[in-house]
Amino acid sequence: MVGQVINRREQQKQHTRVALEDAALRLFAHNGYEQTTVEEIAAAAGVSMRTFFRYFSSKQHVLFGDVAHHRVGLLRAALQSRPVGEDPLDSVRIVLDESDITDPDELAQIRARLQLLFDQPQLIGTYLTVSHELRQLICEFVAQRCGLPPVHPYPLLVSAAAQAAWDAALWAWAAGVDGDLSRLRRAGFAELTMGIRPPA
Amino acid sequence: MVGQVINRREQQKQHTRVALEDAALRLFAHNGYEQTTVEEIAAAAGVSMRTFFRYFSSKQHVLFGDVAHHRVGLLRAALQSRPVGEDPLDSVRIVLDESDITDPDELAQIRARLQLLFDQPQLIGTYLTVSHELRQLICEFVAQRCGLPPVHPYPLLVSAAAQAAWDAALWAWAAGVDGDLSRLRRAGFAELTMGIRPPA
Repeated sequence: MVGQVINRREQQKQHTRVALEDAALRLFAHNGYEQTTVEEIAAAAGVSMRTFFRYFSSKQHVLFGDVAHHRVGLLRAALQSRPVGEDPLDSVRIVLDESDITDPDELAQIRARLQLLFDQPQLIGTYLTVSHELRQLICEFVAQRCGLPPVHPYPLLVSAAAQAAWDAALWAWAAGVDGDLSRLRRAGFAELTMGIRPPA
Repeated sequence: MVGQVINRREQQKQHTRVALEDAALRLFAHNGYEQTTVEEIAAAAGVSMRTFFRYFSSKQHVLFGDVAHHRVGLLRAALQSRPVGEDPLDSVRIVLDESDITDPDELAQIRARLQLLFDQPQLIGTYLTVSHELRQLICEFVAQRCGLPPVHPYPLLVSAAAQAAWDAALWAWAAGVDGDLSRLRRAGFAELTMGIRPPA
């Protein structure tokens, strides 16, 4: 009974979060990121400003911050749960494969975010910062598992390959290149770690 | 005679630019980036604020903007001058190899910039934006030479590998990993395009 209440409360929170994100992305796309206020986002999602700030620390945070927080947290836990004896490169590949996004609603939101970046390139810094955070996380994991410093070329290159595969897949996918996001990302990671193949 | 005058004027301009960059990096490191004003940078370099703004559009621009402007321009010209029939991946490798920085003064300035990023990680966005610009330039070149759209996975992966090799080399080098910057960058690009080798 208590479990059900908590579950319902969690669902409600998730619902509010998604409503705020949807409202923000809609307003950013229509009116521009700079022109949109937190007040307008809250109003469009039917909540108070105070509620907005319970979920997001700033306007920028709605744009990518949640993705960062949420995904960085999940990835960190997933990496740490891999067996210690496993080749760290395999651990990274497995965790990335398992965390590929397939939920249509989540994919639609990612597409809306990327469209916003294409239309308003001054926002690219926000995206790059999130992407960098993911890279650092992977770099530290590989270094730790290999017993190497995080500035050793090996963890730096493996994490750079992971990040670059994500980046390349996102840009190609958002621009409508054939293939789903997950397939593009897997192919990119394979090529960047095992050798880029020339185009057919 | 006219040529000599222009040459002397160019040298003087280059001298002022370097003096402003050196002063800025010194002040950023000692007093913090946020705390340093354009007025202080100009004074430390012995020039007026008006002169500062003839060289740089903003404080952020001194931090990495010049590197971006200068290097992006050089790289673009170098790439365009490669023969059309050449494998674009070779063109990228050759141009990057030829543009490797070996001048000790320039290397010292790069090291100072990176040290600033380590000490004041909130500045990472500036670096990432420059790095992204270089990637885009390479991506567009490879796409154009291959007759592919710039969102095709191949140009995206080649340019991502080039950028990631730079990033990884810079971090490793700035942190004191053995090997010079140029060797680290070349090794990184080779691994990211031909296959990452596990650490020895």
